[in-house]
Amino acid sequence: MTDAITARSPREVLVKIFDQVRSASEALAAPFSAEDQTIQSMTDASPVKWHLAHTSWLFETFILKPFAAGYVPFDESYEYLFNSYYNSVGAQYPRAQRGMITRPGAEEVRAYRAHVDKAMVKLIRNVSDNSFAKVRQLVRLGLNHEQQHQELLCTDIKHGLSFNPADPAAFTAPDPVSDDGAPSLGWVRFDGGIAQTGVNWELEEFAFDNEGPRHKSHLEPFRLANRLVTNAEYQNFMEDGGYETAALWLSDGWALVNQETWTAPLYWRSTEDGWSEFTLHGRAPITPHAPVTHISFYEAAAYAAWTGKRLPREGEWEVAASPQLIEGNFLSPGTSPHPTTVNGSKAPLRQMFGDCWEWTQSSYSPYPGYRMPPGAVGEYNGKFMSNHMVLRGVSCATPEGHMRASYRNFFYPQQRWQFSGIRLAEDG
Amino acid sequence: MTDAITARSPREVLVKIFDQVRSASEALAAPFSAEDQTIQSMTDASPVKWHLAHTSWLFETFILKPFAAGYVPFDESYEYLFNSYYNSVGAQYPRAQRGMITRPGAEEVRAYRAHVDKAMVKLIRNVSDNSFAKVRQLVRLGLNHEQQHQELLCTDIKHGLSFNPADPAAFTAPDPVSDDGAPSLGWVRFDGGIAQTGVNWELEEFAFDNEGPRHKSHLEPFRLANRLVTNAEYQNFMEDGGYETAALWLSDGWALVNQETWTAPLYWRSTEDGWSEFTLHGRAPITPHAPVTHISFYEAAAYAAWTGKRLPREGEWEVAASPQLIEGNFLSPGTSPHPTTVNGSKAPLRQMFGDCWEWTQSSYSPYPGYRMPPGAVGEYNGKFMSNHMVLRGVSCATPEGHMRASYRNFFYPQQRWQFSGIRLAEDG
Amino acid sequence: MTDAITARSPREVLVKIFDQVRSASEALAAPFSAEDQTIQSMTDASPVKWHLAHTSWLFETFILKPFAAGYVPFDESYEYLFNSYYNSVGAQYPRAQRGMITRPGAEEVRAYRAHVDKAMVKLIRNVSDNSFAKVRQLVRLGLNHEQQHQELLCTDIKHGLSFNPADPAAFTAPDPVSDDGAPSLGWVRFDGGIAQTGVNWELEEFAFDNEGPRHKSHLEPFRLANRLVTNAEYQNFMEDGGYETAALWLSDGWALVNQETWTAPLYWRSTEDGWSEFTLHGRAPITPHAPVTHISFYEAAAYAAWTGKRLPREGEWEVAASPQLIEGNFLSPGTSPHPTTVNGSKAPLRQMFGDCWEWTQSSYSPYPGYRMPPGAVGEYNGKFMSNHMVLRGVSCATPEGHMRASYRNFFYPQQRWQFSGIRLAEDG
Amino acid sequence: MTDAITARSPREVLVKIFDQVRSASEALAAPFSAEDQTIQSMTDASPVKWHLAHTSWLFETFILKPFAAGYVPFDESYEYLFNSYYNSVGAQYPRAQRGMITRPGAEEVRAYRAHVDKAMVKLIRNVSDNSFAKVRQLVRLGLNHEQQHQELLCTDIKHGLSFNPADPAAFTAPDPVSDDGAPSLGWVRFDGGIAQTGVNWELEEFAFDNEGPRHKSHLEPFRLANRLVTNAEYQNFMEDGGYETAALWLSDGWALVNQETWTAPLYWRSTEDGWSEFTLHGRAPITPHAPVTHISFYEAAAYAAWTGKRLPREGEWEVAASPQLIEGNFLSPGTSPHPTTVNGSKAPLRQMFGDCWEWTQSSYSPYPGYRMPPGAVGEYNGKFMSNHMVLRGVSCATPEGHMRASYRNFFYPQQRWQFSGIRLAEDG
Repeated sequence: MTDAITARSPREVLVKIFDQVRSASEALAAPFSAEDQTIQSMTDASPVKWHLAHTSWLFETFILKPFAAGYVPFDESYEYLFNSYYNSVGAQYPRAQRGMITRPGAEEVRAYRAHVDKAMVKLIRNVSDNSFAKVRQLVRLGLNHEQQHQELLCTDIKHGLSFNPADPAAFTAPDPVSDDGAPSLGWVRFDGGIAQTGVNWELEEFAFDNEGPRHKSHLEPFRLANRLVTNAEYQNFMEDGGYETAALWLSDGWALVNQETWTAPLYWRSTEDGWSEFTLHGRAPITPHAPVTHISFYEAAAYAAWTGKRLPREGEWEVAASPQLIEGNFLSPGTSPHPTTVNGSKAPLRQMFGDCWEWTQSSYSPYPGYRMPPGAVGEYNGKFMSNHMVLRGVSCATPEGHMRASYRNFFYPQQRWQFSGIRLAEDG
Repeated sequence: MTDAITARSPREVLVKIFDQVRSASEALAAPFSAEDQTIQSMTDASPVKWHLAHTSWLFETFILKPFAAGYVPFDESYEYLFNSYYNSVGAQYPRAQRGMITRPGAEEVRAYRAHVDKAMVKLIRNVSDNSFAKVRQLVRLGLNHEQQHQELLCTDIKHGLSFNPADPAAFTAPDPVSDDGAPSLGWVRFDGGIAQTGVNWELEEFAFDNEGPRHKSHLEPFRLANRLVTNAEYQNFMEDGGYETAALWLSDGWALVNQETWTAPLYWRSTEDGWSEFTLHGRAPITPHAPVTHISFYEAAAYAAWTGKRLPREGEWEVAASPQLIEGNFLSPGTSPHPTTVNGSKAPLRQMFGDCWEWTQSSYSPYPGYRMPPGAVGEYNGKFMSNHMVLRGVSCATPEGHMRASYRNFFYPQQRWQFSGIRLAEDG
Repeated sequence: MTDAITARSPREVLVKIFDQVRSASEALAAPFSAEDQTIQSMTDASPVKWHLAHTSWLFETFILKPFAAGYVPFDESYEYLFNSYYNSVGAQYPRAQRGMITRPGAEEVRAYRAHVDKAMVKLIRNVSDNSFAKVRQLVRLGLNHEQQHQELLCTDIKHGLSFNPADPAAFTAPDPVSDDGAPSLGWVRFDGGIAQTGVNWELEEFAFDNEGPRHKSHLEPFRLANRLVTNAEYQNFMEDGGYETAALWLSDGWALVNQETWTAPLYWRSTEDGWSEFTLHGRAPITPHAPVTHISFYEAAAYAAWTGKRLPREGEWEVAASPQLIEGNFLSPGTSPHPTTVNGSKAPLRQMFGDCWEWTQSSYSPYPGYRMPPGAVGEYNGKFMSNHMVLRGVSCATPEGHMRASYRNFFYPQQRWQFSGIRLAEDG
Repeated sequence: MTDAITARSPREVLVKIFDQVRSASEALAAPFSAEDQTIQSMTDASPVKWHLAHTSWLFETFILKPFAAGYVPFDESYEYLFNSYYNSVGAQYPRAQRGMITRPGAEEVRAYRAHVDKAMVKLIRNVSDNSFAKVRQLVRLGLNHEQQHQELLCTDIKHGLSFNPADPAAFTAPDPVSDDGAPSLGWVRFDGGIAQTGVNWELEEFAFDNEGPRHKSHLEPFRLANRLVTNAEYQNFMEDGGYETAALWLSDGWALVNQETWTAPLYWRSTEDGWSEFTLHGRAPITPHAPVTHISFYEAAAYAAWTGKRLPREGEWEVAASPQLIEGNFLSPGTSPHPTTVNGSKAPLRQMFGDCWEWTQSSYSPYPGYRMPPGAVGEYNGKFMSNHMVLRGVSCATPEGHMRASYRNFFYPQQRWQFSGIRLAEDG
């Protein structure tokens, strides 16, 4: 009973969540050998043990050092070694060389984590009441950060293992895609008007700075496809010469397709028995009804052009994904916010969360009124607001708790190693 | 008298405009030797004589071949040689190798132009009434296209000549910047509300497809600086360590600054007597009160961050530049669209057109409802709608007639060889 | 009669030779337009007018400035602009950007030449007797240098024009190759022993420093093919899968073949009617019996491997090419230096000079006792003594007077834009 | 007694040697963690466990598969995975991606080695007498190959660990360099004449194909320095502006120095307390009297130029290193082959073996009469005979048994990660 009471105290709730997220990272890394955890297969990716160390570094740097009096760092040299890109903290070990670091090894990184965890739990329990709110806010940020790295850990090791001609499996469990067919493609219509998007800070326990401020924008009527584009549909595009038809591509995409000689999504390989793809559980035949994934923005846009449709804008996607929709997300009088049935059938939106990140046609820019926060936190999201495209939804590799309508993921238009897919849109 | 009447006929008006624009290109090229006209100093730039030929190619390909019965091309091989990027027309001579083409030479390109001009005038005068409207529309497009190349001719030859250690002058006339001081910096405030931007096709004689459709968007209250940032102000940024302060830069910009070791705008050089810059009339000391130019988007954004302000959004800029503003560009009831005086003084917007292109914080994307036109015209603007940033206003090198509030110029954020500058903005 | 006497004076002889060589350069450049003369198609090549200017620069820098009192340079800025690679003279305009220099143009370069020529003739006639010998030596060096650039002018403009899809002809005269068949392949045998190679300074009027010192080396018996490998023979190699057979290639060559996707000599193109090649008089079908040319060292070595033979060593080639051969070039007693008939027929060596430079298997290194001369002259040849391979003989583009058995040409093993071919060798 | 007899049997002798060499590799790898063994820090280097696997692959591929009836490969996929560059065996896993292979891990590679070792010992003991000679020859080749990889293992892991800012030690033992001062520099003179160099197959138990055939060459009189250039001497060169003086450098070297901004040997770092260097036992101050090492051929040549001396030719080095010297290595009558005392003191050659590989001025080319052996063995050495320079002697990292006067090591002139140093030479 004492335990139950304690567990409900905000400090113990935080300890519990902290422990859950931290343990989840270690569980994810558990199947990987010391060798697996060491490699970096491209500059965009990072070693498994780097993810484990860097996420600990964040707690150490932004919470333990300023708040935990007497905290002794595990190793002073880590401040430099595991800084990802925070210029305000100091210089960083070169990103492209993370795979050159063999020491600390996987075992020592685990010890580093234990050291940080112990100090963090102690801090959460003992920090002054004055500081607790600030610490809790930072812990939340740190845990959300760690969860983002859990996803990257999966996509990065997948990329790394893909270089092995033996097609090794990362996990024994199958990828979370089923082959029970896809529903027929339908469209959900949304009226236009003034939309309010961006995080509502009062309703969300946590959101990143780039999700706000909540703001108004004007949307024209639009329709969203009720599901993601499937592998089978994407193969139709391929077989129709999609990768050879300049007119379907943005200029930069067409240049890239030719330079990289792309003819299929990343990880696909043409075999005698048709296309196969490398997955987290090894190489497998393409699942026709599963959402196509590991495609670049350029491929998504070319596919959309081939169908005569387009990609969604991020505001459209957010409106469609918002639970508040029914309660009047559209402010303009006379607007009916209810999804309309299309094609003679009720067509609710499926696969909005949990399958693939969905490329939008929106560049990643600051919302009106956004100011980059001062200090290191401002480097978290704000400084990447050029050259990236926004993706919405969450993928099969995203940990729970990131399923927010306002969540903005962002990658370069050429990147393909995330679980990124396509939802079509069209004007209303 | 007959002449006067004829001159007022739509066909003769078109002939006259055609002749004016075509002659203007030749006048621009006249000071340049055959050698000057041949070189290509980077892939982004093109040789002078290529500009002269390619603009003729456009008339030949899109007007003379389809509309002028019996037209004999000047040289069949030019269809390939002077195609810039129109995949729908056919293959293109590689862009990066335009400077390798010595034949046709400058003289032969002039003959090509004369051949095309003669056929065009004949066509305009003799084409059937049925086809005249279509031809006129295409001629307008061709002439606006040619004017864009007139500007590129200037910026490209400037770049080319800048490689010459003798700092040769392109033109004897001075650059159109005066040194009579800049007004003190003031701010013009605009209320928020629903804005209508994008070209109003009924009011404009000509606009590019990417300027429309006219559409609504929601703007928050904002202020624009009453003038451009000056060289003197930009030097303050430089002297304050702007180029060494990571926190001011977007991540990609910071990487570029370090990779390219940028420490000043393009064409600036540090001398014993202070900074000088290479201009179209040779090397000259920096003019303190002239607008800073030849900077990248990254530099513009870093400068804005240094001042605590930001760059304008393209919708904001367009609202501010619109003559229709006073007549109720803002649709929301209760909004006062009149510019407000700031800083205790009347501060009208200056330098909106004719000094520098002004970087905005808006990515170049399709407006709501925009569809890429089918065929070659769709390749004119639409396929570049990724990775570019929008610039507004026109520069000192832009020909007359491109001074439209809706005009959208676009370049990559790293490009600096255009006359690009900075106007600051801030929230409400 | 006075004229005849004057002409025989050493000074007038030198004036005459000077005039001949200088005029030859201008005659070579005469067919090329100002545009042709401006471009630089790769870093290895230089613009025509750069060759014309740089060769004048050499006379100005190394002769006029030190010896001609009161000489006024044509343009002080040329010292930097037309310095090729002489660090001891000063900094050099970047080699890769020579094609960016449009001013001085072709006409002004001609004026520069006339200015230098006038001063040179005056100097040759008026220099003190004390200095004349030194001046004559330097003039000889300058003229031989200019002749080397005459050859480069041809190979560079050929490379530049090859980028033009119209395949323009540089010269109206045909390439100096005849199609009257090649003699059947025979072998000329040479006994081994101690050879003396390297220039004999007492017998040669002029030779480059790298051709000496004359020195002994030991050669094993060897045979040289009596003629160069023909296009037809090389096509056999191609058709036998030469470019796809790793075992025939040096490791670096095989990497290059795959990287560059080479499948034929430079300038060859596969057409419906068989292979054609771009020549100095335009595109033409391959001449089967002409020597194959425009191949890299790697291709020469792979071809030799395919035949089971090898490339000659430079000492072997020089022994075979030496007129002194009959007079006992081999010092070892008992050695018969006379070429032996092979294959039942008298088989003298053909095509040793004037068709193609012949790749040897010898790296370009200093001869025993060679010391790099001090000062700028030492930069002429000595500093390139790494990574290059020696070629012997002279090509169809080499001016007369360079036909020496001791002449050492050198290029990187991957370079193909010279007239380079293959003579086979085998152990004796 | 039985043991002693057995041990003397050729088969058991071979088993013993086999076991010694194989065990030595494992002993070398023992200090390295699984993480250490995985990384590849540049294309030139390979992971530790790759070295361990590839050397086993060689025995499996060239001996077990053809000679051991019923041999079952450990893993069929290794044929591709651990093939280094033998095109005649089949395709190879891309060299630049060896560091991406995490599976097999270090433990599994050890099992692979045990599997191969067991089969090899069985084969050596049981192979038919007919095949034993051939097997023994191949085993010798395989063991010498493995020893070469033992050295590469050391230089590669050194390079890999050098990326770690913590400067980790590979081994606890100090580098085998002593600081008891260097003898004063002296010169040993050798008369010229006809030398016989290249391996004498009758006297050597084992040598690589590229060490022969034994052949004659003519050498002029020369002198070799009695010891290697020291760190202190090399620092004098650095302090005298060696890295900034173009005139000292070969042209390609000068370009590289500027491109790579080299100012010191690889692994040197300037600290407040002077220069330090990264070694196999961590970072340490420079030892003044130790031989300078980790320099490129270009640096060696520039240093030699700075002293007014030169690098040795490989024939000179071999003559000087030959034990047969005293017995008349020089064939010319009247030549005294005995080293002469110089500088008034007896100055024997020191450090010819075991400190650093010594750059020569000789390109790596085939000796007269050398033919690349057919099949895979021909790929071992012959196909690298372009673009490399010969190094002589053996380094501190070379296993015993490679100390032959005829041994030819070869690397690209720009490579610095081997233990490469300088011995000066001069003419006569």
